[in-house]
Amino acid sequence: MDLLKPSRANSCPLTPLTFLERAATVYGDCPSIVYTTTTTTTTFTWSQTHRRCLQLASSLSSLGIERGHVISVIAPNTPPMYELHFAVPMSGAILNTLNTRLDSHTISVLLLHSQSKLLFFDHHFQPLVLRAISMFPPNIPSPKLVLITDHHDHAPSPSPSPSLDDDTYEGLVERGDSGFNWIRPKSEWDPIILNYTSGTTSSPKGVVHCHRAIFIMTLDSLIDWSVPKQPVFLWTLPMFHSNGWCFPWAMAVVGGTNICLRKIDPPQIYNSINQNQVTHMCGAPVILNMLSNCSNSEPLRNPVHFLTGGSPPPATLLRRVESLGFVVTHGFGMTELAGVVISCAWKRKWNRLPAEERARLKARQGVRTAAATTEVDVVDPVSGKSGTRRIDSRRDRNVAVMHPDGYLEIKDRSKDIIITGGENVSSVEVEAVLYSHPAVNEAAVVARPDEFWGETPCAFVSLKKQNERVSEEEVIEFCRDRLPHYMVPRTVVVVEEELPKTSTGKIQKALLRDNAKAMGSLRQAGRL
Amino acid sequence: MDLLKPSRANSCPLTPLTFLERAATVYGDCPSIVYTTTTTTTTFTWSQTHRRCLQLASSLSSLGIERGHVISVIAPNTPPMYELHFAVPMSGAILNTLNTRLDSHTISVLLLHSQSKLLFFDHHFQPLVLRAISMFPPNIPSPKLVLITDHHDHAPSPSPSPSLDDDTYEGLVERGDSGFNWIRPKSEWDPIILNYTSGTTSSPKGVVHCHRAIFIMTLDSLIDWSVPKQPVFLWTLPMFHSNGWCFPWAMAVVGGTNICLRKIDPPQIYNSINQNQVTHMCGAPVILNMLSNCSNSEPLRNPVHFLTGGSPPPATLLRRVESLGFVVTHGFGMTELAGVVISCAWKRKWNRLPAEERARLKARQGVRTAAATTEVDVVDPVSGKSGTRRIDSRRDRNVAVMHPDGYLEIKDRSKDIIITGGENVSSVEVEAVLYSHPAVNEAAVVARPDEFWGETPCAFVSLKKQNERVSEEEVIEFCRDRLPHYMVPRTVVVVEEELPKTSTGKIQKALLRDNAKAMGSLRQAGRL
Repeated sequence: MDLLKPSRANSCPLTPLTFLERAATVYGDCPSIVYTTTTTTTTFTWSQTHRRCLQLASSLSSLGIERGHVISVIAPNTPPMYELHFAVPMSGAILNTLNTRLDSHTISVLLLHSQSKLLFFDHHFQPLVLRAISMFPPNIPSPKLVLITDHHDHAPSPSPSPSLDDDTYEGLVERGDSGFNWIRPKSEWDPIILNYTSGTTSSPKGVVHCHRAIFIMTLDSLIDWSVPKQPVFLWTLPMFHSNGWCFPWAMAVVGGTNICLRKIDPPQIYNSINQNQVTHMCGAPVILNMLSNCSNSEPLRNPVHFLTGGSPPPATLLRRVESLGFVVTHGFGMTELAGVVISCAWKRKWNRLPAEERARLKARQGVRTAAATTEVDVVDPVSGKSGTRRIDSRRDRNVAVMHPDGYLEIKDRSKDIIITGGENVSSVEVEAVLYSHPAVNEAAVVARPDEFWGETPCAFVSLKKQNERVSEEEVIEFCRDRLPHYMVPRTVVVVEEELPKTSTGKIQKALLRDNAKAMGSLRQAGRL
Repeated sequence: MDLLKPSRANSCPLTPLTFLERAATVYGDCPSIVYTTTTTTTTFTWSQTHRRCLQLASSLSSLGIERGHVISVIAPNTPPMYELHFAVPMSGAILNTLNTRLDSHTISVLLLHSQSKLLFFDHHFQPLVLRAISMFPPNIPSPKLVLITDHHDHAPSPSPSPSLDDDTYEGLVERGDSGFNWIRPKSEWDPIILNYTSGTTSSPKGVVHCHRAIFIMTLDSLIDWSVPKQPVFLWTLPMFHSNGWCFPWAMAVVGGTNICLRKIDPPQIYNSINQNQVTHMCGAPVILNMLSNCSNSEPLRNPVHFLTGGSPPPATLLRRVESLGFVVTHGFGMTELAGVVISCAWKRKWNRLPAEERARLKARQGVRTAAATTEVDVVDPVSGKSGTRRIDSRRDRNVAVMHPDGYLEIKDRSKDIIITGGENVSSVEVEAVLYSHPAVNEAAVVARPDEFWGETPCAFVSLKKQNERVSEEEVIEFCRDRLPHYMVPRTVVVVEEELPKTSTGKIQKALLRDNAKAMGSLRQAGRL
C-alpha cells in the first residue's frame, strides 16, 4: 500500500491557537480570566478574550508586525500577559516572555539578540525598561514600547517619558478589528515562542518552539495531570517561565478560569482559593513551602491539585501540604522541552500506603509523559546502591537514579554535588533531612572547601517564624541521627530571613557556594 | 527568524505505539486486560501485554510480514483483538479489523481489495472465514489463516480443516522474541489501520489512517472525555468498529484496565460492572437502551461514564439511564475521522437544570473537540425555526441544525427525511416522541409512499417486555398530543421482538423502508 502523503485535503498545521476560537464557541459565556487587584476585580468571558486577542492581533498587523517578527513582553501574571500568548502568534509573530527579575543590562542584551520589534511592558517595570532601552547601541533601532496599565485604567503612566510611544495595550485592543483574519502558521514547524533560559551558569540561551510542539505539549500536559473540564486555575507559576508550562493554551482547551494575581502573597492566595473555588495551581516547591508556613493556613475546604516542579520537593514538605488539602503531582521539565515531560505518574494502589511512604514515592520525578518523545538514557551506569542505577540526563547534567520500578529520581545537579573524601554527597538528600527538622523552613546544602577532605557539606537554613532559635549544633546533631557520618554538614549557617531565590523559586546555590567559599577552608581537629 | 526544520534532532514520528512501552514501565504490575468467559477469568498486566505484543510482532516478521503489508482480523472483543492493535503495526503492517456481521462474500471482497497477507480469526468465525476464502479467484493467493482460540486453550479447532495453517495465535505469541526491535514508522504519515465503512448505501469504502492521526485522535479523545488515570474500561463498543474510537490505544496512555466480553449481554454487563468496578464504557445508544431495559437493572453502586454516539440518543433514554447512574457523554464521529470529533461539551452550569432540560441539551451532538481540525460548515443555510440554521455535514449528508449557542444537533440523515406534502419531517424528532412513550422500547420512523402526500411517516416500534400490548391507535394519539399534525405517523407497526440492527447497533432503516414500501401506498380517506 502506498504511503499517505500530507496535503491540504488530509491535514492542516497543528497549532494551539485554534483552541481559543473553540473556547469562544463552547465556553463563550463562561469566565476565562478573573483578575483581582487591591481595588477591583475584573472578569472576562471566553468570547471576550477571543475578541480581545483578535483585536490586538489586528492592531499588531496594522503596526507592521509580520510573520516571524519577535514581540517581547515583561509583565507579571496579569490578563494582558495571558492574552499575549494567543494575540502575538495570531499576528504571525513569535512571543518572547522576559523574566521579570532580570536586570536592565540583560534585558537589553536579550532584546538585541532576539531583534525584538515591540516590547509590551507592565507599568511596574517602566524604569527597568527605559534603562534597558538606553543601553541600546545608537545605530540599532530599539523595539517599539507599549505600556500595559491595569485593565481599563487609562490614566497616563505615573512618569510619562519622551521615549515612550503613545500606544497603550488597551489602546491597541480597542482600535483593533475583531473580525481580523488571524495569521495561521504556514507550517506547523513555524516558531511560536522564544524563551531565554535563566543563564545562571553561562550566557542566556535562546529556546525556540514551534506550533506543533506547543500543541502536543499542551494536550500531553492536560492528560498527564488529568485536568477535567472547566477547572479554576490560579496562576502562581510565572507565565514568563517556560510559558507557564503550556497552561495558558491548555486552559483554552478545557475552558478553565484563569485566576490572575500580580504577586505571590500567601494570605492573598488563600483568599483567592476560597473566593474563586480554585481547583488547580502550579509552581515550584518554594510556593508550596510558603503556603504551608503561612500563619493562617488552615486545611482547604476543597482539595486543590498542585503541579510542582523546578526543584526536588522534600518529602516532608509534600506530607505537610497534603495534610492541608493540596493534592500534589510532581513533574520535571525544561524550558528546552516546553514543559513537563517527566512526571511521577501516580498508581492507585499507592493510596493505601502510609503518608510518609507516599511522600517518598512522590518526591521522585517519575516517568516520561505519554506524548513526550524524550528518551531518558543511562549514560554512565555505575554500581550504586542495590537496585538503583545512576544516570545523567544528557543536556542538563542532572545526576539521578533510576529505581527498579523505572521511576527516575534526580539526586542533584552535577555542579551541586559535594565531593568529600572521595565520596559523592547529594545536596538534595541532606536537604531532605534538614527539611524534616520541625523548626527548619528552608534548607540548602553546598560545598565548603576543606584542606583535608577537599569539600565538606555546608548547610544554610532559615527557620519557621513561630520557632525559637535553633543552634547550629542541634541541627548537626539532628543530621547525625539520620545520615551517614560523611554526609552530615560540618557547617550550619542559620539565616535570619529567607534563603536567596531566583524569580522561579529556585534557591540560588551559586550565591551560597560563594558564601561558603568566603568562609575559608574548614580545618578543625575536633570535628574530624 | 528562520523557520525551524524538522529533523531527527528535534523530532520523531508521532505514533500511538510508544504508549505501550510506557504503560509497561509505569503500569507494568497493574492489570491491562481482564477477560471473563463462562468457565474462567484471565488477567494480564501491562508488562505482559507489552511482552506478548512484541513476541507476536516478532513472529509476524519471521513469517515475512513487511512494512506496509495488510493484516486482517475478525474477532469479538477478546484479548487478542486488543493486542493486535499494537502487535500488527509493531511488525510494520497495517491493521484491518473486519466487521463480524459481514457475510462471507463481502469478507472475500475486502480481503481481496486490501491484498491482506494474513487473517487472524476467532474460532467462532471459522466456517464464515473458510467460506470467504473458498470464494477467492484461483489465480490469487489467499491470506494465511491464523486461528484464535480462547487464551491458553490449545485444543485443536473443533473441525480441523485442510485449508487451515498450523499456526495459532497463541503459538505465534509463544515462539516470538520479547526482545524484538519493533518496526517504527519511517514517517508519521505511514498508514497504521485500514477500515472499511459499512457500505449500507454503496460498496464498502476503505479508510486508511496514519500513525500521526491516531496519535492525535487518541490524546484528543482522552481529553474530551476527561478520562482519568487507571480507569476500568468495559468494552461494549466493538473494537472492529472504527478501532473502538481509538480507545485501545488510549487505555495504554492512562494505564486503564480493559474488561473484555465476548458478547453484549445486559445481565453479564451488570455483573462485570459490579465485579470489576467499571468506571468507563462506550457504545451506541442501543446499548444504553438494552441496559435500561434489563429486568434486573438497579441503580449502579458507583457512577459509570458512558460515551455514546453512532445515532442520536433520544432525550428520554438519556434521562432514564442517567437515573440509573450512567453519566453520559454524547459524541459524533466517523470511521473516516478515526473517532469522536464532535461532542456535546458539558458546561458546569447545566448541572443546575432540571433532568428533562439536561437530556435535551445532551441529545445534541455538540461542538468540535479541541484537537479536531474538522470544520463544520453551513453549506445550505435555510430559514428554519427562529434561531436555528440547518446545515449539511459535507461527506455524510447529515441534516443538522446549529443552535444559537454553537452546538450542532443532527436532525436526520438526508436519506431518512420524510417529505410529506412538501414538508420535511425529521424521523429523529418523531422517534424522540415515540421513545418518550412509557411502553415503547425502540422506535424507527421511515417514509411510506402515499398517493396524495407523496410520503407519510410510518413508525416501527418494539415494546418493553414488562408492558402490556399497546394499540397502534394509542401510539398515534400519543404523538398527536406532542407533534404538529403533519409529523404524526399515519402508520404504526408494533414489532414482536426487537427492531433489526447493524452490528454497531444502528437500526436498519433501509430494511424498514423496504417494509413500508411493500405495504403499498396509503390512501384512507378517514385518515386525512
